[in-house]
Amino acid sequence: MSPDELTALLEAIRDRDVSVAEGLRRLSAPPVRDLGHTRLDTHRELRCGFPEVVYGAGKGTRELVEICKAICEEHAKLLVTRTSEQGAAAVLAAVPEVTHHARSRVLTRGLPGEDEGEGLVAVVSAGTSDLRVAEEAALTARMLGARVETYSDVGVAGLHRLLEAADALRDARALVVVAGMEGALPSVVGGLVARPVIAVPTSVGYGASFNGLAALLAMLNSCASGVSVVNIDNGFGAGFQAALINRVGAPTPAS
Amino acid sequence: MSPDELTALLEAIRDRDVSVAEGLRRLSAPPVRDLGHTRLDTHRELRCGFPEVVYGAGKGTRELVEICKAICEEHAKLLVTRTSEQGAAAVLAAVPEVTHHARSRVLTRGLPGEDEGEGLVAVVSAGTSDLRVAEEAALTARMLGARVETYSDVGVAGLHRLLEAADALRDARALVVVAGMEGALPSVVGGLVARPVIAVPTSVGYGASFNGLAALLAMLNSCASGVSVVNIDNGFGAGFQAALINRVGAPTPAS
Amino acid sequence: MSPDELTALLEAIRDRDVSVAEGLRRLSAPPVRDLGHTRLDTHRELRCGFPEVVYGAGKGTRELVEICKAICEEHAKLLVTRTSEQGAAAVLAAVPEVTHHARSRVLTRGLPGEDEGEGLVAVVSAGTSDLRVAEEAALTARMLGARVETYSDVGVAGLHRLLEAADALRDARALVVVAGMEGALPSVVGGLVARPVIAVPTSVGYGASFNGLAALLAMLNSCASGVSVVNIDNGFGAGFQAALINRVGAPTPAS
Amino acid sequence: MSPDELTALLEAIRDRDVSVAEGLRRLSAPPVRDLGHTRLDTHRELRCGFPEVVYGAGKGTRELVEICKAICEEHAKLLVTRTSEQGAAAVLAAVPEVTHHARSRVLTRGLPGEDEGEGLVAVVSAGTSDLRVAEEAALTARMLGARVETYSDVGVAGLHRLLEAADALRDARALVVVAGMEGALPSVVGGLVARPVIAVPTSVGYGASFNGLAALLAMLNSCASGVSVVNIDNGFGAGFQAALINRVGAPTPAS
Amino acid sequence: MSPDELTALLEAIRDRDVSVAEGLRRLSAPPVRDLGHTRLDTHRELRCGFPEVVYGAGKGTRELVEICKAICEEHAKLLVTRTSEQGAAAVLAAVPEVTHHARSRVLTRGLPGEDEGEGLVAVVSAGTSDLRVAEEAALTARMLGARVETYSDVGVAGLHRLLEAADALRDARALVVVAGMEGALPSVVGGLVARPVIAVPTSVGYGASFNGLAALLAMLNSCASGVSVVNIDNGFGAGFQAALINRVGAPTPAS
Amino acid sequence: MSPDELTALLEAIRDRDVSVAEGLRRLSAPPVRDLGHTRLDTHRELRCGFPEVVYGAGKGTRELVEICKAICEEHAKLLVTRTSEQGAAAVLAAVPEVTHHARSRVLTRGLPGEDEGEGLVAVVSAGTSDLRVAEEAALTARMLGARVETYSDVGVAGLHRLLEAADALRDARALVVVAGMEGALPSVVGGLVARPVIAVPTSVGYGASFNGLAALLAMLNSCASGVSVVNIDNGFGAGFQAALINRVGAPTPAS
Amino acid sequence: MSPDELTALLEAIRDRDVSVAEGLRRLSAPPVRDLGHTRLDTHRELRCGFPEVVYGAGKGTRELVEICKAICEEHAKLLVTRTSEQGAAAVLAAVPEVTHHARSRVLTRGLPGEDEGEGLVAVVSAGTSDLRVAEEAALTARMLGARVETYSDVGVAGLHRLLEAADALRDARALVVVAGMEGALPSVVGGLVARPVIAVPTSVGYGASFNGLAALLAMLNSCASGVSVVNIDNGFGAGFQAALINRVGAPTPAS
Amino acid sequence: MSPDELTALLEAIRDRDVSVAEGLRRLSAPPVRDLGHTRLDTHRELRCGFPEVVYGAGKGTRELVEICKAICEEHAKLLVTRTSEQGAAAVLAAVPEVTHHARSRVLTRGLPGEDEGEGLVAVVSAGTSDLRVAEEAALTARMLGARVETYSDVGVAGLHRLLEAADALRDARALVVVAGMEGALPSVVGGLVARPVIAVPTSVGYGASFNGLAALLAMLNSCASGVSVVNIDNGFGAGFQAALINRVGAPTPAS
Repeated sequence: MSPDELTALLEAIRDRDVSVAEGLRRLSAPPVRDLGHTRLDTHRELRCGFPEVVYGAGKGTRELVEICKAICEEHAKLLVTRTSEQGAAAVLAAVPEVTHHARSRVLTRGLPGEDEGEGLVAVVSAGTSDLRVAEEAALTARMLGARVETYSDVGVAGLHRLLEAADALRDARALVVVAGMEGALPSVVGGLVARPVIAVPTSVGYGASFNGLAALLAMLNSCASGVSVVNIDNGFGAGFQAALINRVGAPTPAS
Repeated sequence: MSPDELTALLEAIRDRDVSVAEGLRRLSAPPVRDLGHTRLDTHRELRCGFPEVVYGAGKGTRELVEICKAICEEHAKLLVTRTSEQGAAAVLAAVPEVTHHARSRVLTRGLPGEDEGEGLVAVVSAGTSDLRVAEEAALTARMLGARVETYSDVGVAGLHRLLEAADALRDARALVVVAGMEGALPSVVGGLVARPVIAVPTSVGYGASFNGLAALLAMLNSCASGVSVVNIDNGFGAGFQAALINRVGAPTPAS
Repeated sequence: MSPDELTALLEAIRDRDVSVAEGLRRLSAPPVRDLGHTRLDTHRELRCGFPEVVYGAGKGTRELVEICKAICEEHAKLLVTRTSEQGAAAVLAAVPEVTHHARSRVLTRGLPGEDEGEGLVAVVSAGTSDLRVAEEAALTARMLGARVETYSDVGVAGLHRLLEAADALRDARALVVVAGMEGALPSVVGGLVARPVIAVPTSVGYGASFNGLAALLAMLNSCASGVSVVNIDNGFGAGFQAALINRVGAPTPAS
Repeated sequence: MSPDELTALLEAIRDRDVSVAEGLRRLSAPPVRDLGHTRLDTHRELRCGFPEVVYGAGKGTRELVEICKAICEEHAKLLVTRTSEQGAAAVLAAVPEVTHHARSRVLTRGLPGEDEGEGLVAVVSAGTSDLRVAEEAALTARMLGARVETYSDVGVAGLHRLLEAADALRDARALVVVAGMEGALPSVVGGLVARPVIAVPTSVGYGASFNGLAALLAMLNSCASGVSVVNIDNGFGAGFQAALINRVGAPTPAS
Repeated sequence: MSPDELTALLEAIRDRDVSVAEGLRRLSAPPVRDLGHTRLDTHRELRCGFPEVVYGAGKGTRELVEICKAICEEHAKLLVTRTSEQGAAAVLAAVPEVTHHARSRVLTRGLPGEDEGEGLVAVVSAGTSDLRVAEEAALTARMLGARVETYSDVGVAGLHRLLEAADALRDARALVVVAGMEGALPSVVGGLVARPVIAVPTSVGYGASFNGLAALLAMLNSCASGVSVVNIDNGFGAGFQAALINRVGAPTPAS
Repeated sequence: MSPDELTALLEAIRDRDVSVAEGLRRLSAPPVRDLGHTRLDTHRELRCGFPEVVYGAGKGTRELVEICKAICEEHAKLLVTRTSEQGAAAVLAAVPEVTHHARSRVLTRGLPGEDEGEGLVAVVSAGTSDLRVAEEAALTARMLGARVETYSDVGVAGLHRLLEAADALRDARALVVVAGMEGALPSVVGGLVARPVIAVPTSVGYGASFNGLAALLAMLNSCASGVSVVNIDNGFGAGFQAALINRVGAPTPAS
Repeated sequence: MSPDELTALLEAIRDRDVSVAEGLRRLSAPPVRDLGHTRLDTHRELRCGFPEVVYGAGKGTRELVEICKAICEEHAKLLVTRTSEQGAAAVLAAVPEVTHHARSRVLTRGLPGEDEGEGLVAVVSAGTSDLRVAEEAALTARMLGARVETYSDVGVAGLHRLLEAADALRDARALVVVAGMEGALPSVVGGLVARPVIAVPTSVGYGASFNGLAALLAMLNSCASGVSVVNIDNGFGAGFQAALINRVGAPTPAS
Repeated sequence: MSPDELTALLEAIRDRDVSVAEGLRRLSAPPVRDLGHTRLDTHRELRCGFPEVVYGAGKGTRELVEICKAICEEHAKLLVTRTSEQGAAAVLAAVPEVTHHARSRVLTRGLPGEDEGEGLVAVVSAGTSDLRVAEEAALTARMLGARVETYSDVGVAGLHRLLEAADALRDARALVVVAGMEGALPSVVGGLVARPVIAVPTSVGYGASFNGLAALLAMLNSCASGVSVVNIDNGFGAGFQAALINRVGAPTPAS
């Protein structure tokens, strides 16, 4: 039940369109919907501002479809990350209006248009191979209502590409900065802007990159102030955090 | 030069109180002040909204005093982290109006009063031994203009202490959550609020805590959305980012 | 030879149904049965209360079948963990009355019914992907005679699901708590109950989860008292220990 | 408030020795006592069967004394682990009837006599240097009501010392097995008994022991069933867990 | 050129069966045979007592065949470790009299019969899955002239299997002890015998075994004296070392 | 009781110089002498050819003295490793005829003269800072009866120093090779000789040496055959195993 | 635009063959060419002396072809590393004059002949399996204009192969030394020459090689002066730096 | 014996100022001088262009003085790194003309003046705390004959400080780049210049810097071409390598 739906219900009760008994029934439904394998937290949107996001990895195809259907019965929006090719195909077949973003392995339903978002989140990435993670971050932030601009292939070994974009970056309320290998980009960006930077290490690299550990450690040790870090390849987490920050800057709903 | 000082200078030029030649001279001073060992970035306040913060560890006493004096000549505010006892005493003797916060090893000058800040940052910590890091975060956020409320000793093995505080936590624009050992607190807090959580692992623990590595990894793998992480014991970094987020929510200066 | 079988033999000798010479022959069989590749410990049930459990990983199909047949010739019960699909099929074909539990890759023979067990072991798991490990734990505990109740998808980011179950959890003699990612669940459960908690980290996660290392370290550093830990994904080990604890609480056989 | 005290209060109300209003007052005291730096969980004994244990490391002397005094005002029993020499002296001076166990750095008050405990916990250790951890485990288990027997210097390189003790070990309801270096002892003990073994790796060793990591990993990979593990040097945790298991075997209070 | 061949050549020169010029030609051939990709050390047998051993991993099939052919042109013996199925088939087709040992992925030519060896090396292994490594060790030691006896599936959780073999183990000049998981077996064996023990950790295990790291660290920290360690799964290295030790005990060739 | 003492006793019984009853009494003394903190294995010399060696680290001064006295009451020889300055002084004061080797922190009693040993063990070390470990190895091998020759400061960056010694090295029955930093020396030595090489990594180095881990890993991965490895800084272990190997080459006592 | 092309343009302007306006247009083209997924740095040759090198791993086939085509439109030379078989085939089909070096997975266009290079870079490798990395280094150095000589299969366990080559190695301006396993070769080579040595650890090995970590650590701890290190398997990086060093020794272009 | 000394000797022989017999005597002195604890390589200057450098850590004061005296008897130059305060004082007292550089803990004798060097090495460092390592690099490069320019406190979070210096950096033949924390500086510098960059990670940082590991991994994964890396805090190694590269660019001695 989204905040809007709850408001509507309470107003209906106030206006006597819905009886108190019926209101009671609807509100006393347990906030968990049990699918056997999964217990959906149906009040999360009310509590956290967004329905439960589905982490697609490690779920069977049948389970994934059941979860997606159940969420779509309760909510207008759906966000699934790390879907297999097979899982994506099954969900597309079973649930209407779902879009598959192949590069980032994300499924969305109810994704706002590129110009519809409010505020601004910038998603900056270092190399071509980091794009899959950057896209996951951008889609997540858009799903949570942010307008997003992306800047890709602006790694630190070619500073002029980044410096050209510096002014534009300063307009964002929050920045997601994605980089693999030595993970230096967040430190450089963090020195150029006065906004929160969410750094995402990626597993791009080889040898002593240790699947992203090098970039992760570098980002945790950033000499720039205002940088925090999420898990390796966790574009979703960074996009989510950036969107929450973006909301902090939103005019209060009631005002 | 702070934004206010710059505005004042430009207005003085507009109003012909200061000649263009003099304005040019003042503005063209190099933005770096070279102390031999250290090159102070004197335009950082203009660019990033706060003067350079001094990282006290690994600096000699004489160097530390010179840096603090130089900053205080340019700015009203000073923030030094990780000072030794000896370094703190020397700065207190040499620079007026500096306060030493012994538990967190922080020096401040120009710290706003507890009620003066704008917005709200919550600083939540798990155990008594985590207080030194929590205090560093709180002081940093206050220095950057945030109002701060602290909740200490609310670890996950005694949930009721945390649940009592849950409503209050939801009022914050950003939360800093500090924990050592298994580092579980940010996940639990992240599930209770819809605001950005900055997690700080601490080196509290022994054995397989590996000086905070266990808590760091736990926080990076948080199952709660909206959690990002800073370095082990980096209360400063978390407080800084929380204050940046808090500013995102501030009414725009011009409005 | 199980304790019951030994008792029966000794009684038969006492009652002269079996000659001393024959009893001697049966008892003097070497307690190891050598299959060439494997030496079965046939007295383990007598010594440890349960026949040797077969660790299916890394065994060839032919070897696995031979081992299972040999055990079933000596014992009524069989428990095999980590079987491949291929190995499971071969054992099912060769040994009667074996059941394959596909999710947990476990084979059982002689599994008691869900209501038959004595005492109570609770198996609590955090996410859908942790179910395979939780099932391994539950089957193991049931094979050793415990009654088992399971609570799944009660992760710490949605506390209310867990708090609802808290009273029921307090009825268990021992709890197995299964979680991947940040591994926080055992700490929270450990704070709610006064019974031994056996924590099982799982390899669920990615990036800085390092295949379960993050959860393992978190659990080893739990701030809750009364938590001990087994290897990553070792549902069997946790279920086995929980069943041993459950037996500690059993009325003594003779009484 | 201990269970006995609560029972007494309720009976007094039933018997009209205490008015309902007074009972209400006593029961509605907040279950947390706030010392500024620490918030004592005063209902833990009611909930978990034992008052809060004080982790002495990282606490200032003044804080430590205040915490010990506060606990002794509410409870008859006190258990402090990892106290410094200085902290121990201060508590001994300020709180009556406290005993300092120097080898294990433990403080106790209300420690039952060696023959008073119920049930049996065996504490087995590998080398002379492991004794400090073994003593912490034994004292903890005794504080929680268990009778304890200790077997020291029975490392695996001299098996006969261990085999001599095997029969006695089988009498315990739970075993704590303490070892550094290669950490092999729990596997060998686990193969000899059919009771739960709580393994404690110690930091005894050098070089590739990595401060106990080698022993920790060995214990987590034990080929013996029924072994679980606690943190390096965590004698307290193992003793606590063993005592909880010991209680599982206790005749139910009411019966 | 083997020592025998060299002796024969020198004697032929002495006896004028070979001219000095021809002897010079044969002896002045460069001690390296260059195959383009590989430079065979043809004097190694003279210098180290055994021709170069071929490490099959990472070599192309064509390269592997060329190397094996070149060695067999110079020497009667061939030992190849870690061959792929495909590489083994190609060598069998191209070089006569080669045997493929499938379990251990070893190729041999000129392997002495089981009773032909001199002295005694014992190869002891813990579990069924360790057999492939144990076989590699046994074949290597036999190729270097040792008689070998093997003891398998004698893990520490079932001590009686090992204790039965203890007397026989004391007859060996050197022992190879192979174990995965917690790697405790070499410590126990080292406490039973007064001969050198070469410990081989295997990658058998899962989770916190970290592909054999747990066993490796345990063995390096063995509390038993007289234990040294080779790389994970390095049966070859252990067998080689044991055979060198075995030769130390051989009656001197000349005597 | 040493083998010689046992032989003497049995011969005395045979010759009726000692009664069977008295022989029985002497032989049936328990093979463990319990000092409270330590249980000495008094039959180890009989079983393993050398009395128990005392690991001095982590033992209190009083404990150390008691152990040394007890051993010297049973045996002519004493070997203590890793003694503190303070512990060494106390043992020297309490036990007659003990020598303190300060560089290696070893105590000996009954050390044979440099020319008395049988066979030959070579101890080769890479740098000046590795000498303390090399000395521990050499003293240990001498205590176990080997003649020892040492070659120091022959690191791989100055090959000519090592090549000069190559012929002499080939005379040894076993070689101990000690190196820190990159740990390359055992591979080079292993390529020059056909005898067993026991490699000892040392903690000499800094930064990415990680206290000897770099050298340890290098040695475990040696491309030379016939190299096995002991723990970091474990000169004792290497000297012990080299002496055992040296004994393998000894003419059999009886012959 | 290469330096020569720029010179030509400026001269054409000077000679009035090109108008200033046209020169302006050509020079003001942005130095970045945006392919959507990738932003080519077209001035890198001007700035760094060589066009952008393509890192083939993690790029889709279509992307790879587009990037190669775009580079070949601007430059005569192309260097691609770590191409998949599939990617290589697609580029060969789409771009003329490209050569595929299968062993090293490198694509080149405009590779100078073996005798055309200037100066001398030596590429030394330890084992047959290291050749793929050595070839990547050699091709890279040749692409940057160096003459290259290679020395393969000269590992430290057979020193004479290396010592034979020592004189020739001293002629090089820079040396690339490639080794897996224990990574000792750079230390030995570094002790033989007075030229810069670039060490490349490879992932050749198993077990405790940890995919090249052992060799990497060994090389970082080299006791030889004048050794620096690149990432595991990074033949490209080593060849590039060696070629830069080689250029330092080149007669200045202008002279 | 330095190259100049050798030339002089040979010319003296040619000119009959020195007899052949005397020349033979001087040249046939063994190239190693044995101090008991240390064997000095007296021909290293001839072979490698610089006398042996003394690594001061882990050497006793007496040993250090003896080594320094011995070197100064053979050579005009002396370079000692990582001296303790105490060791430095003793060498200053015993050996004439030695200078102690306290910040970098280096001793020099025969250090050329700042303007005397040939060519140019740039030493760039990120923060004030990195200066000690940068100074070690600069002194080493000067001792080997390079002219050195230093650029300090130019970290990546304040890019303008670095960009100002970019043109000057391009004049160097080789660059040493020193940074702790996230270690990003070499990547940025490597993108600005076309000369070899030797990166030095420092142990500056805390928490997840793991004593310089974060910076080391970042530098090994640099996305900039032409970067190689030395050990953590190894200013000496980087300065040495840079000076060797600088020499590559020197006009050949003979010309």
